[in-house]
Amino acid sequence: MRMYDIIKAKRDGFSLTEKEIDFIINGYLNGDIPDYQMSALLMAIYFKGMTSSETSMLTMAMARSGDTVDLSEIDGITVDKHSTGGVGDKTTLILVPIVAACGVNVAKMSGRGLGHTGGTVDKLESIPGFRTSLNRQEFIDTVKKCGACVVGQSGNLAPADKALYALRDVTATVDSIPLIAASIMSKKIAAGCDCILLDVKVGSGAFMTKIEDARKLAEKMIEIGKKAGKKTVAVITNMDEPLGYAIGNSLEVIEAVNTLKGTGPCDLTELCLRLAAEMLCLAQKGSYEECLKMAKDSLYSGRALDKLVEMVTLQGGDPTVILNTNNLKKARFFHTVTAERSGYITHIDTECCGKASVLLGAGRQTKDSVIDHTAGIVLSSKVGDIVNKGDIIATLYADDESLFPLAEDTLLSSVEIGSEKPEPMKIIMSETLR
Amino acid sequence: MRMYDIIKAKRDGFSLTEKEIDFIINGYLNGDIPDYQMSALLMAIYFKGMTSSETSMLTMAMARSGDTVDLSEIDGITVDKHSTGGVGDKTTLILVPIVAACGVNVAKMSGRGLGHTGGTVDKLESIPGFRTSLNRQEFIDTVKKCGACVVGQSGNLAPADKALYALRDVTATVDSIPLIAASIMSKKIAAGCDCILLDVKVGSGAFMTKIEDARKLAEKMIEIGKKAGKKTVAVITNMDEPLGYAIGNSLEVIEAVNTLKGTGPCDLTELCLRLAAEMLCLAQKGSYEECLKMAKDSLYSGRALDKLVEMVTLQGGDPTVILNTNNLKKARFFHTVTAERSGYITHIDTECCGKASVLLGAGRQTKDSVIDHTAGIVLSSKVGDIVNKGDIIATLYADDESLFPLAEDTLLSSVEIGSEKPEPMKIIMSETLR
Repeated sequence: MRMYDIIKAKRDGFSLTEKEIDFIINGYLNGDIPDYQMSALLMAIYFKGMTSSETSMLTMAMARSGDTVDLSEIDGITVDKHSTGGVGDKTTLILVPIVAACGVNVAKMSGRGLGHTGGTVDKLESIPGFRTSLNRQEFIDTVKKCGACVVGQSGNLAPADKALYALRDVTATVDSIPLIAASIMSKKIAAGCDCILLDVKVGSGAFMTKIEDARKLAEKMIEIGKKAGKKTVAVITNMDEPLGYAIGNSLEVIEAVNTLKGTGPCDLTELCLRLAAEMLCLAQKGSYEECLKMAKDSLYSGRALDKLVEMVTLQGGDPTVILNTNNLKKARFFHTVTAERSGYITHIDTECCGKASVLLGAGRQTKDSVIDHTAGIVLSSKVGDIVNKGDIIATLYADDESLFPLAEDTLLSSVEIGSEKPEPMKIIMSETLR
Repeated sequence: MRMYDIIKAKRDGFSLTEKEIDFIINGYLNGDIPDYQMSALLMAIYFKGMTSSETSMLTMAMARSGDTVDLSEIDGITVDKHSTGGVGDKTTLILVPIVAACGVNVAKMSGRGLGHTGGTVDKLESIPGFRTSLNRQEFIDTVKKCGACVVGQSGNLAPADKALYALRDVTATVDSIPLIAASIMSKKIAAGCDCILLDVKVGSGAFMTKIEDARKLAEKMIEIGKKAGKKTVAVITNMDEPLGYAIGNSLEVIEAVNTLKGTGPCDLTELCLRLAAEMLCLAQKGSYEECLKMAKDSLYSGRALDKLVEMVTLQGGDPTVILNTNNLKKARFFHTVTAERSGYITHIDTECCGKASVLLGAGRQTKDSVIDHTAGIVLSSKVGDIVNKGDIIATLYADDESLFPLAEDTLLSSVEIGSEKPEPMKIIMSETLR
C-alpha cells in the first residue's frame, strides 16, 4: 500500500477502504507518512468529501489511536455533551450540574479556547484551585461521588486527531464536514460515555455559518455515533450573536452561576434547559416533557447550583467564589463602549466579537499565550434591542488599559445598528435530530 | 502575508497576485514555507486551476529562482524545442542536426528519462565519451562552432521547479495543466533561447491522453512563452504508439542515425521534418514550404548526419559509432517476442511498452538506478500491421537474461491483436498552434 496511490484515489473521487484508512492513521502517527502527503490528502478530502462509511472508519481509526476511557465502574448511564463551539458558550457550566442533580452521571472531557471561541477548561480554571487535570481514577471517583466531573482532554486521547487537527489548522483544511465530524466524534467515542448530545452551533460565531451545513454536520456525527454503538442526538442552536451577555472566562462563570440562581439571560437559560432535557431523555429518565420538567425543577430549586458547588469542591476549587461571585478576582481596568448612533441592533458579527475578547486577553493569540481569566466583554445590548447614541452597549475588562482601543474598534465593527427592527432571534434552530 | 491565507484563497477559487506567487516561490526555496503547506496549495491548484495570468507569474517566478542562461554571445536567432515526453522519442537527435545544418543555432538543454518515458541526455550518453555536462562557456562555444549543442539541464536552472516537481511527484499533484505548463516553460525561459517549439505529445504513452488536454496545455505554454517575449509555437503529435521502432538508449541512437541516412521509420522521419521546418520558420528562414524543403535537403543530402558527427565530436563523443553504428556496444542477450494470435495490431499501450523497456534496464526504476544504455526493445510491427501467430513482434535486449520473462509479459500485455483493421494512425495531430 502506498500513500501516493491513496492520495490519487481520493483526488479522483474514489472511496477509501478501511485498510487504507487504518494505514493512513497508523502511518501518520508513527511517522511513516510525512506531513506533506497527509496535507495533500486532506486537501483532496476537502474537495472530494468522504462517504458516511469512510467518515466512520476514519473516526474509529482516530478513536483507537490512543487511550480509550473505560467508564464501566460508574453505575448507570453516562451522558456526554459536545458543543461545536462559539462565543459566550458557558452552557456546560450550567447543564452539567442540572443533569447531575437529576441523578444522571456526566463524565465530561472539555477543550480549551480555540481561535475566537472559548473553552470550558479555561472557564473552569478561573475558579481558584479548580483542577482540570485529574488522573483516570480521580475522574471516575468524582463522578461516582457527585454524578459530575469536567476535566481537560487527556494527552493521549485520540492523538491522531490532535496531530491531524494541528496540520489542518495550518493548511486551510479545517472546514470540511467529514473531517470536523470525525475529529469531534473520535474524541467523544474514546471518552467512553454511553450517550452523546451534540449542540451544533450555527451563525456568524460558529464554524458552520449556514443551517444546511450545520444539519449535514449533525447528521454525519449522529450516524458515526450510532455506528459506534452510542445513543446520539443533536440540536442545532443559534450562534449568530454571543450566547448570554458575558464573554471571557471568569465573566462567564459569573453568568453561569447567575443562571443557576434563576437570574440568567433568557437565551442561555432556555438553551440549557432544552439541552438538559435532551440529556435526561438520552439517559431514559422519561418523556421529553417529563425531562424538561425535571430540568426546570433542578434549576429553580437551587439543587443544580448546590451540585456545581459540590463538583467544584471535589475538583479542588474554591466553593466560596461560586456561593458569592464577588469573591472572584476582577480585572484591573474596565472600559465602556457606547453606541455611535441610535437605532436597533440589527446584527452582531459574533466571530469578530470573539476576536475582540481575545484581544483583551481572554483567549490565546498563539498556542503559547497565557490567558487572562478576568478579561473579556459584557454586552449591555443584544440583537433587537434599541439603543440611543451614547448608550453603553458593552463593558470591556482587561489587566492592561492599552488593550482597550483595538478591542473597542473590533467590537464596534462587529455591531450593526440600523433603523429597522430585525426579526427576533430564536435560540433553538432545529427539532431534535436523531 | 501568510501562506495559510494563500492556500485558503486558492482553495476558495480566488486568483493569486504576483506578490503572493513570488512570496510562495521564494519562501519555499528558502525553507520558510514548509512542504506540508506547499503540497496543500498544490492540491488546491489541482482542483481550482490557475488563470493564464497566474500561470505566467508562477512560470516567471520559477524561471527567476536560479540561473538564467545568457546566449547573447551567439550570433543570430537561437531556437529551442521541447517534447512533453514519450516512448521511443529520439526526435532531438535528428532534429537538432537537421536545423543546425540549415544555419540555425540550436542551444538545447535536455532531460533524463522519467518514469516510462526516455530522456535525450540518457540517449546521448550511450555514445562513448559524449559529455552532457558542459560549463556555460563550453556550451556557448560549441554552438558558436557548429551551430548545435545538447547538454543536460544545469543544477541551478529553475531550482524552484525542481523542488516543486519532486513534491508534486509524491503528492499526486503532477497532472495539473497549469503546473505542467509552468514547469516546462520556466526551464525553457531560463535556458535563454529566442524561440521555442513545443512538441506536445498525446496518447497512451504521453502525460496527456486526450487531445483536448494536449491542446489546453499547448495553448497555456504558448501564452506563457509570448508573455515572456519568446516566439513560441506548438504542434500536437501522436504518442498512442511508440515513435519509430526502437525504445532504449543506444537502440534509439542507431534508429536516429538511420533516419539521418534517410532509412528511418516513416512516422519518425515525417515528424522530424515537420518539427525541423517549424524551427526554421521560427528562425525566419522563409515560408513553411520553403523551410520544409530546406529541412528535407538537409536530411537527404547527408549534411544533417555530418552535423551530428561534428556535434558529437565537439562534445567529446566517439564519432566512429555514428559513422558506423555497429561500433556501438551491444547488449549481451536478446530475446524475441512472438504474436500469441493472428490478426491486426489494433492498439499498443505505450506507457506499458515504456515500462517493459524500463524493466529491461533502459530506464530508472528509482532515482538512483543505473541505466543500461544497451537495453531496450525493437518492435517489428506497429499499429495497423498484420501479424500471424508466432511471428516476431519485438526483440528485447538486456545484459541480464533473467529480466526477459517479466518484460515479455509486460510487452505482450501492451499489444492488442484483433480481427478488424484499425484506423490508420496520423503522426501530426494538429495544425501549428501559435
